[in-house]
Amino acid sequence: MKIAIQGIEGSFHDEAVQKLFPNEKVDLVMCDSFDGVTQSVKNKKADFGVLAIENTITGSLLPNYNLVEKGDFEILDEVFLNIQMYLMALETESIIDIFEVHSHPVALLQCRDYLRKFPPQFKIIEGNDTASEAKRIRENNLQGVAAIAGKQVAERYGLKILDSNIQDIKENHTRFVLIGNKGTSATKKVPNKASIRFQLGHEVGTLSKALQIMALHNINLTKIQSLPVLGTPWKYAFFVDVTFLDPQDFYSATESLKQFVKNFKILGMYAQNIENVPSELTNVIQDGE
Amino acid sequence: MKIAIQGIEGSFHDEAVQKLFPNEKVDLVMCDSFDGVTQSVKNKKADFGVLAIENTITGSLLPNYNLVEKGDFEILDEVFLNIQMYLMALETESIIDIFEVHSHPVALLQCRDYLRKFPPQFKIIEGNDTASEAKRIRENNLQGVAAIAGKQVAERYGLKILDSNIQDIKENHTRFVLIGNKGTSATKKVPNKASIRFQLGHEVGTLSKALQIMALHNINLTKIQSLPVLGTPWKYAFFVDVTFLDPQDFYSATESLKQFVKNFKILGMYAQNIENVPSELTNVIQDGE
Repeated sequence: MKIAIQGIEGSFHDEAVQKLFPNEKVDLVMCDSFDGVTQSVKNKKADFGVLAIENTITGSLLPNYNLVEKGDFEILDEVFLNIQMYLMALETESIIDIFEVHSHPVALLQCRDYLRKFPPQFKIIEGNDTASEAKRIRENNLQGVAAIAGKQVAERYGLKILDSNIQDIKENHTRFVLIGNKGTSATKKVPNKASIRFQLGHEVGTLSKALQIMALHNINLTKIQSLPVLGTPWKYAFFVDVTFLDPQDFYSATESLKQFVKNFKILGMYAQNIENVPSELTNVIQDGE
Repeated sequence: MKIAIQGIEGSFHDEAVQKLFPNEKVDLVMCDSFDGVTQSVKNKKADFGVLAIENTITGSLLPNYNLVEKGDFEILDEVFLNIQMYLMALETESIIDIFEVHSHPVALLQCRDYLRKFPPQFKIIEGNDTASEAKRIRENNLQGVAAIAGKQVAERYGLKILDSNIQDIKENHTRFVLIGNKGTSATKKVPNKASIRFQLGHEVGTLSKALQIMALHNINLTKIQSLPVLGTPWKYAFFVDVTFLDPQDFYSATESLKQFVKNFKILGMYAQNIENVPSELTNVIQDGE
C-alpha cells in the first residue's frame, strides 16, 4: 500500500501512518508539500494520503481543509498524535556549541519562546520538514547545527537529544486524516463521525436553524469553524465535524440540511478514532463515551 | 498616546495603528512578541495594543485569542488590512544575486510555494518581524540578502522591490483588534459588534440552543470557532463574534445565555469597522449592510 505524506521517514506524518497501519507493509510517497500529497493521491501515485488537519495550539489547518474540499477527496479515517518537540544534534555536540537551528516552519513557530532565549547571532533556518533537517545534519556531519523534531527522529538518525519538550505550549495534540479519491473506502468500520462543509447567507439565525436540524436528528457537533468565502462578502462557509450513533440519522439530517444550506458537501464519513485504533479493523468502535 | 505592537515602524501592525489613528500622535511601543504586546498594556507601558486576530488564509490566530481572554483585556476596536508580500533588497541587487531571504515566520509560511522555486542552496531564515529584517539589510548593507515584507517597508527603508504579490494565496485579508485594560474605553462609537467566549458540555444540541437564544434577540453571528478545552475532554469553548443593531438586544441575549452556558465572557463590545474608519469618531457606523 502506498501512502503519501509531507516529509520523510521518522516525521510526525510517518508516525501517524504507523498508528493507522501498524501491521501493513506501507510504502511512503514522500512529498515536500501538502499540495504534493493531494496531487499524489489524485494522480494515483499513492493509494491514500495522510494530512494534519487541526491542532490544539494553532486550531484548524484551513489550507489543508481547503485542499481536501477543492480536490474532492474523501476523509476515510482519523488519528491523533501528542506532539512533543526535541532539540537534537551530532553526538559530539552540547547545547553551547549550537549556532544554527533548522526545522519545518510550523515546528519553529511552536518553539518560538524557547528559541528566543538564544543569543541574537543564533540563526533560525526553515527547512522542508522536521525529519529531513535532522537527516541532513547526520549525513553531512554538520557541527554547530541542531534540528527540532520528534523523539523518534533522533533515534532513527542517530542524533543526541540536547533538550526535551521545548514547544511553548506543553499540551500539543494534532489530528491527522486519511484521505483517498472518492469511492476508495479503506475501512470496514461502521461510520459514527462525518466532516461536512456548507454555506449560509448572512441572515440572523440561519446557523442556529442548521444546527437545530442536526440536533433534531441526534447529530452532535465536535467541531465548528466559520470562514469567509473569498470574493463573496457576507457569505460564510462552515467546516463542521459531527458524531452520531446511527448512520441513518446522519443521512436523514443531510436530506433536511440540503434544502436549507448552500453547497452542502460531505467530506467524509468514518469511525471516530480517539483511541488510535488501526485502520483496517472490521469491528465497530464503541466505548460508551 | 502609546500603542504596543509586535514589530517595528513600517510593519503591518504599524500600518494597522495608522489606519486606526491617522490623525493622532502615536508613540509605538515596539515588542518582539505578541505576549510582549499584552504585557506592555498590562504594565501600563502602553495605553493600548494592536494584535492580528484572524486571517483569510490561516483562519483565527488562536494564541492571540487566548492572550486577550486570559489577560482579561477588552477589545475596543477593529481594523482590516489587505496584506500583500514583496521581496526586497539593496538597490544594487537583482533577483539572481539573492542567496538568502529573511522574514517573520508567518510571512515565510504565506510565501512557501514561491520560495520553493529557488535553488536548494537558497537559505530561508526566520527573523523577529518583517520590517526589522528589511531595516537590517539596509543598515548593514547586506548583499545577496532579501527580506519579505509589505510595500511600505521598502519605501521606508529605501530598498528595491525585486518581486511583488509573492504570497501563495492572493487574497490575504487580516483583521486586527485594538485592546486595552478593562475600563479604558478608547472610542465613543456606539457598539454594534461584540466578541464573546463561552463553554458548553458535549450534549446533543447545546450549541444550537445557544445560537437560538442569540437569534431570538436579533443577534447575528459573523464568526464562530470551537476549540477543545485543554485537559477537559468533551468540553468545548467557543469564540464567537456577533453583530446587532441595538446594544440592548445584546445585553438581553447575554442575560439569557449566562444561565445556559458556562464561563461566559465578553471580550469586548465595539463598532464593526470594515471601512477602516479612524478610532476616535463619535458618529455611529451605519452602512445598511
